[in-house]
Amino acid sequence: MERLSERAARNLAAIREKKPLIHNITNYVVMNYTANALLAMGASPVMAHAPGEVEEMVSFASALVLNIGTPDNNRIASMIKAGKKASELGIPVIFDPVGAGATSFRTDAAKKIIQDVSIRVIRGNPSEILSLRHENSNTKGVDSLHSVEEAAETAKNLAGELNTVLAITGPDDLVTDGENVIRVSNGHPLMARVTGTGCTATVSVAAFLSVDDDPVSAAATGLAFFGMAGEVAGKKASAPGSFMIEMLNALYTITPEELEEGCAICDA
Amino acid sequence: MERLSERAARNLAAIREKKPLIHNITNYVVMNYTANALLAMGASPVMAHAPGEVEEMVSFASALVLNIGTPDNNRIASMIKAGKKASELGIPVIFDPVGAGATSFRTDAAKKIIQDVSIRVIRGNPSEILSLRHENSNTKGVDSLHSVEEAAETAKNLAGELNTVLAITGPDDLVTDGENVIRVSNGHPLMARVTGTGCTATVSVAAFLSVDDDPVSAAATGLAFFGMAGEVAGKKASAPGSFMIEMLNALYTITPEELEEGCAICDA
Amino acid sequence: MERLSERAARNLAAIREKKPLIHNITNYVVMNYTANALLAMGASPVMAHAPGEVEEMVSFASALVLNIGTPDNNRIASMIKAGKKASELGIPVIFDPVGAGATSFRTDAAKKIIQDVSIRVIRGNPSEILSLRHENSNTKGVDSLHSVEEAAETAKNLAGELNTVLAITGPDDLVTDGENVIRVSNGHPLMARVTGTGCTATVSVAAFLSVDDDPVSAAATGLAFFGMAGEVAGKKASAPGSFMIEMLNALYTITPEELEEGCAICDA
Repeated sequence: MERLSERAARNLAAIREKKPLIHNITNYVVMNYTANALLAMGASPVMAHAPGEVEEMVSFASALVLNIGTPDNNRIASMIKAGKKASELGIPVIFDPVGAGATSFRTDAAKKIIQDVSIRVIRGNPSEILSLRHENSNTKGVDSLHSVEEAAETAKNLAGELNTVLAITGPDDLVTDGENVIRVSNGHPLMARVTGTGCTATVSVAAFLSVDDDPVSAAATGLAFFGMAGEVAGKKASAPGSFMIEMLNALYTITPEELEEGCAICDA
Repeated sequence: MERLSERAARNLAAIREKKPLIHNITNYVVMNYTANALLAMGASPVMAHAPGEVEEMVSFASALVLNIGTPDNNRIASMIKAGKKASELGIPVIFDPVGAGATSFRTDAAKKIIQDVSIRVIRGNPSEILSLRHENSNTKGVDSLHSVEEAAETAKNLAGELNTVLAITGPDDLVTDGENVIRVSNGHPLMARVTGTGCTATVSVAAFLSVDDDPVSAAATGLAFFGMAGEVAGKKASAPGSFMIEMLNALYTITPEELEEGCAICDA
Repeated sequence: MERLSERAARNLAAIREKKPLIHNITNYVVMNYTANALLAMGASPVMAHAPGEVEEMVSFASALVLNIGTPDNNRIASMIKAGKKASELGIPVIFDPVGAGATSFRTDAAKKIIQDVSIRVIRGNPSEILSLRHENSNTKGVDSLHSVEEAAETAKNLAGELNTVLAITGPDDLVTDGENVIRVSNGHPLMARVTGTGCTATVSVAAFLSVDDDPVSAAATGLAFFGMAGEVAGKKASAPGSFMIEMLNALYTITPEELEEGCAICDA
């Protein structure tokens, strides 16, 4: 527990110092907000999706974000192209399966990306993550998430099945590599009233992945930082417009020391 | 008059309770803002435009928004595909003909959408709406809008010609089904200094359509609510940056009771 | 010096009076922010990229912005189509080569646009602008920018080589037509923490170009105005979320008289 809070502080300090370049192939809705969030926390965002440049662009990056909100076939193809190049070069890839499970188009796209690209972390909500399980999966559906204990068990099984680290976000977040499960309890209810907070949690994890080789601690500390920004914002704003602006402010102002003190990470 | 203010309150309460899913195929400029506006008022936005998923996505939705700002041929084709499916399923469609009349590409696209899709409400400014009239229309052009009385008469004729409900917005808004004309006087001058306020008025009407079967009262009450958010924002902010944030706050904070008291709807 | 500050005031007053239509073919990340910036300063933005409408749309515009952030082949083709039409009609074109030099896809796209379109001003940071030089250029690379004097010399050479006006932005901005070099010192460090401030500087210059036939004074005064908005915002906000909102406020509230007093333009 204490180790992860120290790690959170070290990771944040490293982001502020190194200003890692984060390559995003993401959806149209959140692009501006996630770019601003990365800049505010100290990273350097670049958005690029053309098939003619994604391989060259990702080769300069310290992490790659693939996000299938507002997907189409060209966008998916560019994600796979960039993701394969990143896999080759050992650059960490984080995948956000926005809306997987809602339409078969998205579920299929998500599964194809997972199959073709070496993914370090998948960040999604429970229904998105559950939709990624194999057809003959032993994992039960949404019914299996009635309690935190059941959810932790389900998450562990799925991480093993998908052979990656899962970061499942909600009122409490769970991070697991299939063996251990960590719970992150930072956050604020107004985060659900701003579009793209899930996608922004994803880019926060991407920034932490770019400075932390362990995907479990990177995901847990990145989510704790982002959740803490929500808490700080929630003390200044009581409605979603001001809240989303205060979130950006908090990503800029929270110090490593404050993060070490404020992050709420424990074993689940 | 009183009936519509009560209806406004009932509709807003229903949106807050049911959190209707609103499917948007819309332009790149306003996507983030309209998604945030829908979340703030209590609805659930989804943005999806891929031909491979729009039919499945719209089948879960309580309303469909088609908006031709930043159009291209693929986008128009997806709108028609989704719109036809919504028409089949009886899901209300609202159409925002952004820029119709400015280029023949947009005017043609708008007319094609109106021809192929069963539209419940069209929301636009006077010049956009007038551009939609048939070639052999009896409706006169922009010259016919010199007074409120003339504008009301023109709106009524056009609604009959296009066989849909029109919501024509400006300093005063007019809503008509071709028989009656209602005037909504809520709003604030700074709304014209924020991009996409027209588009956001449209998604407000979409949310109200998802809980109100009568397109005239849905459009009038949705516009009154959105205009009132402008009034509340205008009391807190005197420049467009802060104003656009306060608009989102107001969409979240205005209660049904406040809306009932504040909405300015009357016969025109 | 005094002449340019008076010119700045005259230009801003003209924008507020004429509300010039600025046609943007730009990237997905900044589209909303640049549209809001143009509205706040008093101009009228339109975003349109479909090959079927860009020529008609640009013919109504007072300036055209071409910006290659988030580029793809279709977008580049539309930019060239619109740019050629604008060149034909004598409508000023400003080009923002976002990310030129980062990938060969972008560098090639930027060079093609410069070759095919008559560009009035190119606005970029030093590395973007340097990437545009001819293969057999006499201009040295980034090493040639160690001092303001060297940078001014390099800028002058490049403007001559590219036969256009260059607006090179950074802590200090340089504007040159290949003969004279002007330095603009307005601005604030937080501008680097908001995505698309470079792109927004570009649209500010576009608005000034639409009312000022001299591209050097248009660029210098447009950058001074935008930088001054950063200074005003920096007095009200100390973190990037609030800062980006206060920038929009300042673009709306700064008067021509305040601009005349506050703009920091001198010979370099």
